Amino acid sequence: MKDRIAPLVKEVQRNAEIVALEGELRSLYDEVADLLDHDEVERFPSYFIEDCIYQVVSRENYAEGLPQATIYCDGVNMVRDRVTALRETQVYVPRIWRHFISGVRITAIDDGEIHARGNFLLTEAMSDADPTVFLVGQYIDVLVRVGGSLKFRQRLAVFDNHHVRRSLIVPV
Amino acid sequence: MKDRIAPLVKEVQRNAEIVALEGELRSLYDEVADLLDHDEVERFPSYFIEDCIYQVVSRENYAEGLPQATIYCDGVNMVRDRVTALRETQVYVPRIWRHFISGVRITAIDDGEIHARGNFLLTEAMSDADPTVFLVGQYIDVLVRVGGSLKFRQRLAVFDNHHVRRSLIVPV
Amino acid sequence: MKDRIAPLVKEVQRNAEIVALEGELRSLYDEVADLLDHDEVERFPSYFIEDCIYQVVSRENYAEGLPQATIYCDGVNMVRDRVTALRETQVYVPRIWRHFISGVRITAIDDGEIHARGNFLLTEAMSDADPTVFLVGQYIDVLVRVGGSLKFRQRLAVFDNHHVRRSLIVPV
Repeated sequence: MKDRIAPLVKEVQRNAEIVALEGELRSLYDEVADLLDHDEVERFPSYFIEDCIYQVVSRENYAEGLPQATIYCDGVNMVRDRVTALRETQVYVPRIWRHFISGVRITAIDDGEIHARGNFLLTEAMSDADPTVFLVGQYIDVLVRVGGSLKFRQRLAVFDNHHVRRSLIVPV
Repeated sequence: MKDRIAPLVKEVQRNAEIVALEGELRSLYDEVADLLDHDEVERFPSYFIEDCIYQVVSRENYAEGLPQATIYCDGVNMVRDRVTALRETQVYVPRIWRHFISGVRITAIDDGEIHARGNFLLTEAMSDADPTVFLVGQYIDVLVRVGGSLKFRQRLAVFDNHHVRRSLIVPV
Repeated sequence: MKDRIAPLVKEVQRNAEIVALEGELRSLYDEVADLLDHDEVERFPSYFIEDCIYQVVSRENYAEGLPQATIYCDGVNMVRDRVTALRETQVYVPRIWRHFISGVRITAIDDGEIHARGNFLLTEAMSDADPTVFLVGQYIDVLVRVGGSLKFRQRLAVFDNHHVRRSLIVPV
């Protein structure tokens, strides 16, 4: 079991390069949210490097450093397995998820790694009910540039919810 | 009855021009949301071309290709009529609407038309009650440049709600 | 008791300079939201000029021009007092707040002062409950540039809520 990478927060000088990079990050966050909203989860693993960490974890467990996570993936193969399970073995009532993302910010750049965070609010609508606020929390991420693209070395979706109503089926 | 324009999704290369255009789109989406939030609906029709489609439609009807829409405007004159009706004939309890928009993205540029989408969450507060999540969904838009400005050739506000509590009074 | 500064709304030409300034404002709004979400309220007063106005006020009182405000600070020293009170005298159950900000826009630039506004939605999660929509409203701000940084000459957080559940403990 791999340890979570501790997020860094350093003074980041807002120059033209950082402004452009933050714009690129926002666009990436929206792109990933959009593919999840549109049930194109097959594309999700391509946003991670091979040796990645992806977790959906409660604020409490995260703050206490407890390893338990609601969704736990250590390496991109576990992310891929998750997608396969979702498509082939899990049975669930159709629903619509919608992401709202705010406050995407770079908190540090360290040795080629970009530490960033941003708030998420997910609504969920069952086919016979109105959308409700399903999950609220913060992405705590570490990204690296591979080729021309930014990829997640770590994505933690740390949720403020006390419990998660219904099971978490797709990634957040 | 005009058919909805099918939205296009193509690979869009994120170069400097696209980044600037997406910034312009975000700003436009915020501007339209702002005028609706501030009850300046008279300005709403000016964001559409003459031969436009504006609809507020349920996800279900949209997905099935059913023509029924909660608000249905075929051409800018129907958009103008809607505003007139709102001001002169409709009677309703005052309320405050507030738009939250996330994930505005260009999905294709085709023959001078920009296909774009973005998520919306509307809160509504009656004068004697706290704001609640009123409507959640996605704008699915086609824009063209007229003179210096981007105008809607099609704006669909496709909502995830199973039903719409209270009547939809103003455009979304 | 100082009067609120009336917000200005003028035609703002969207040139490169305004686009960059609006980007800077969005980043500032996110930065302030982020420090409040992370309970780093000690840093909050540094975003205001000495002779500032900071208020959290109901839409009703704001619209009627009534001076009553839920949080009322006239001058940065009252903002600092607020932080001290929060840390040293107030007793409250721990909770997590999360800001979602949308539609940050410059409405006028007048005599070196930037008039701007943006929507906020705050969720609150008690340690034994799921996040709920706690406060929804609009920032109505006047900013000035001091040294290299933008500072608030006035920040009003005008909320749509009919009443505020539980006491407002930290700034919005």
